Amino acid sequence: MLTAKANREGSVTDRSYEPLTIDTLAGRLGQVPAVVRRLGADTGLWEVREVGDGNLNLVFTVRSPHGRLIVKQALPYVRLVGDSWPLPLKRAFFEYHALIRQAERDPGSVPEVYHFDEAQAIIVMEYLTPHVILRHKLMAGARVEGLAQRLGEFCARTLFRGSDLSMDTARRKADAALFLGNVELDDITENLVFSDPYFDAEMNHHTPGLDPLVKRLRADIDLKIAAQELKAAFANNAETMLHGDLHTGSIMCTDSETRVIDPEFAHYGPMGFDIGMLIANFFMAYYAMPGHIADARARADYQEWILATIAGIWESFETEFSRLWRTERRGILFQASLFEDQGDDLGAEQALARRLAHVWRDTLGFAGIEMIRRTLSLAHIAENDTIEDEALRAACEGRGLRLARILATGRENIAGMGAVLALAREIERKDWT
Amino acid sequence: MLTAKANREGSVTDRSYEPLTIDTLAGRLGQVPAVVRRLGADTGLWEVREVGDGNLNLVFTVRSPHGRLIVKQALPYVRLVGDSWPLPLKRAFFEYHALIRQAERDPGSVPEVYHFDEAQAIIVMEYLTPHVILRHKLMAGARVEGLAQRLGEFCARTLFRGSDLSMDTARRKADAALFLGNVELDDITENLVFSDPYFDAEMNHHTPGLDPLVKRLRADIDLKIAAQELKAAFANNAETMLHGDLHTGSIMCTDSETRVIDPEFAHYGPMGFDIGMLIANFFMAYYAMPGHIADARARADYQEWILATIAGIWESFETEFSRLWRTERRGILFQASLFEDQGDDLGAEQALARRLAHVWRDTLGFAGIEMIRRTLSLAHIAENDTIEDEALRAACEGRGLRLARILATGRENIAGMGAVLALAREIERKDWT
Repeated sequence: MLTAKANREGSVTDRSYEPLTIDTLAGRLGQVPAVVRRLGADTGLWEVREVGDGNLNLVFTVRSPHGRLIVKQALPYVRLVGDSWPLPLKRAFFEYHALIRQAERDPGSVPEVYHFDEAQAIIVMEYLTPHVILRHKLMAGARVEGLAQRLGEFCARTLFRGSDLSMDTARRKADAALFLGNVELDDITENLVFSDPYFDAEMNHHTPGLDPLVKRLRADIDLKIAAQELKAAFANNAETMLHGDLHTGSIMCTDSETRVIDPEFAHYGPMGFDIGMLIANFFMAYYAMPGHIADARARADYQEWILATIAGIWESFETEFSRLWRTERRGILFQASLFEDQGDDLGAEQALARRLAHVWRDTLGFAGIEMIRRTLSLAHIAENDTIEDEALRAACEGRGLRLARILATGRENIAGMGAVLALAREIERKDWT
Repeated sequence: MLTAKANREGSVTDRSYEPLTIDTLAGRLGQVPAVVRRLGADTGLWEVREVGDGNLNLVFTVRSPHGRLIVKQALPYVRLVGDSWPLPLKRAFFEYHALIRQAERDPGSVPEVYHFDEAQAIIVMEYLTPHVILRHKLMAGARVEGLAQRLGEFCARTLFRGSDLSMDTARRKADAALFLGNVELDDITENLVFSDPYFDAEMNHHTPGLDPLVKRLRADIDLKIAAQELKAAFANNAETMLHGDLHTGSIMCTDSETRVIDPEFAHYGPMGFDIGMLIANFFMAYYAMPGHIADARARADYQEWILATIAGIWESFETEFSRLWRTERRGILFQASLFEDQGDDLGAEQALARRLAHVWRDTLGFAGIEMIRRTLSLAHIAENDTIEDEALRAACEGRGLRLARILATGRENIAGMGAVLALAREIERKDWT
C-alpha cells in the first residue's frame, strides 16, 4: 500500500487488493477527489461504520459534517459462507457497469456512483437515507406509496433500453459479451435457482414439515423440465441486461420513494427473469404474513395491498413498455420500416401484444422457480426465516410452493394477473394440512 | 512486406494486410512450415490458381508434385459488390475459430486447417477433391450417397456439442462472447434474411412475375411478426455455435462423401437456424427442377429424392441428437442429477422430446424465412437464377414463397415432416397462375 501511486482520478489501481477496515478506510480513500468533494479533506472528521448485512460484501457508511456516502467492497469469497467459497472480485466491475447503465436507462432509479476502483473492487456511491430495505418494510407491514408503479417502470425502462428493441446492436452485442464474463455469479444463479432445489444438493435446507411436499416436487417431471427450460432461457437467451437479483432485499424505500441496489448479478438474459423474481418475493411475503401480523383484519388488508402491488408492477411494466415500444423502438428488432413506415401501425400493436405475452409467460415461470428455490435451496427469505413456530412457517412456505408449481408448469396457459391473484387467494384461504 | 518478421510458427503477423495475387502467393507463403510440409520448399514447382466464385473472398488452389491445398483470404470488402461495401478482415478469424471447433465436434466434417494468419486474414486448408459444390450437383440432377445422414449428423454434433447441454459453461460463455465480435456478418444476416424482404429495401430484387405475391407477403402482418420473432431468436438466443450460412453452396460432395465449408458467418444462436436454412435450400431446389430436368418422370424421381433428403436430414439429426442427449449430456442444462441419477430416465426422455419439438418449430420458421429472403432479398440461388424463362422462374419461386409463408407463420402447429412434405408436394402439383 505504501508504494501505491494514485492515477489521474486519484484512485489506486496498481497495488494489490486489500480489504478495507474501519481503521484504514479514511487513509485509503482520503485522497480520492470524488470522495473528498463530498466528505471534505479532513479525514479526522469522517465517521466510518461497517453496516454490511448482505451475503457477499463489505459495506461501510462514511459521514462527515459535509456529507455522507457508501463504500462497498467485494470480498474474494462469499461472506455468508466464508473463504471456503471463493468468489472473484470482478463482480464489483459488473456491479459498477450495471449501475451506470441502469442510471442511464432509468435516471434516479439506482444510487449514484461517485467513484469506482477496479483493482480494489470498491464502489463509492450515494448513501440512501432514510431508505430501508423493502423486505424489512414488508415484515413490518409498512406500505410504500408509488412502489408498484416505480418498480414496473424500472423493469420496463432497463429491460427495454438494454435490448435489441432499442440499442445499437453492435453496442448491445459488445455489452452482452462484457457481461458474459460474470461467469461465477451466473453459476450461482444457475445452480441455486434452477437445479439445486430439485435434487438432494449439498447446501439445500428446508423446514422439516415440508418433507412430503418437497418429496413430491422433486419427483415432479413436468416441474423439473420447466425449471430446466427456464434455465436454458436464463443461460442462453440474452434479450437484455437484467438486474439479475431483483428481490425485495435489493430494493430500498422511504414511505414514498423507491430505489434499486446491488446489481452485481447483472446478466444478459430474458426480460421475464427480473419481473418474475420480483413478484415471487411479494408472493412469498404475502404467504408469510400470518407469521408477522396477528390481527386477522389488518393482516388481510395488508395482504391485499401486497397483491395489489404485484398486479400494479405488471400493469406499470406493461404500460411503460408499451409506451417505449411506440416511441423508442429504434433497434434491429420489429423495426418501424416493417410496420409504421408502411402505414401498418396495427401490425406493430399485434407484435407488441405477442412480445408482452412472451414476457408474461417467462415472468410466471421464473416467479415459480424463485419461490421454490427460496424455500428449498441455500438462500431463504427473512419473512419466513423469522417465523419461529415451525408448523406455521411450514404452512406459509407450503402455500408458496403450491402456487409456485402451478406458475412454473402452467405458465403457458394462465390468462392474466386476475387469474394468478385468484389462485394465490384460494391457496391462502385453504387449510392444506 | 520486406520488413516483415516471421513469428514462431513461420507466419507473418506484424506487417500490414495485403491481398494475395497469383504472382505473390508463393513468395509470401513459401516460408510457412505447414505449407512447405505439404507442397515442398521449391516454390518454382507450385501451381497457383484463383478459383474464388463466392461472394466475399479470394480463394486460390495451390498444387505441386508433393501435394495441394487451398488458400483463402478475406478481402476488406464484399467481393460481389465491391469496395463500396466494406467488410472487416476479422471474419477470417471467426471462420478459423469455427472450423477448428467443427473439426473437434464432428471430426472429418470440414476441411482440415493447415495454417492461419490473422493479420493477413489467410486460412490455408485442405483441398477437397474431387468434391464439387452441392448446389451444382442439385442443378445437374446428381445424387449423393449418404448425404442426408451426414448432414443430419453434422448438425446434431456441432449444435449439441457447442451448447450448454454439453460444454463446460464457462467455456461456452467465453466462446459466445468471442463470436459476439462477428458483428458485421451478423448484421448482414439480420438485415438481408430477416428484414429486407419485408419492405422496399435498397438491394432487394425479385422476378417481375412475382409482384402480386410479393405485395401480399409485404402486407402480411403475421408473416412480418414471425420474421421478427425469429430474428429476435437469432440475435439473442445463443443456444450454440451455428455454422451460420449452412446452405447447399456451403457443402461440397463427391458421389458419396459430404463436407461442410465456409463458416465465416459463425454465430451463437438457436439450433433450428442451421437446419432450417439447410432444408430451405433443398425445398427451393425441389421447386426449381422444372427449370433443370425436362423429362417429367426423371424430374419427379429426382424431386422425390430431394424430399427424401430433407426428411432424412431431420431424421438423422433427431437420431444423433437423441444419442448425444443420452450419452453426452454433461452441461449445465437438464443435468443427469435431476433425472437419470434419481432413477428418472423417463423424465430425461420427456425433456428430450420437448427440446426436439422446440428445435423443430424453429427449424420450420427459419426454413420459411430463408426461402423468402432467397427470392426477394439481395442473394438469390443459382437453381432459380439460371432459369431463363422468366414465367417459369416466377412459377418455381412462387411455389417456394407459398410453402415458406405456411412454415414461418404455422411453425407452432405443424405435426411433423410428413405433413410438411405433403404440403410441399401439393403446392408443386397445383397450377397457381
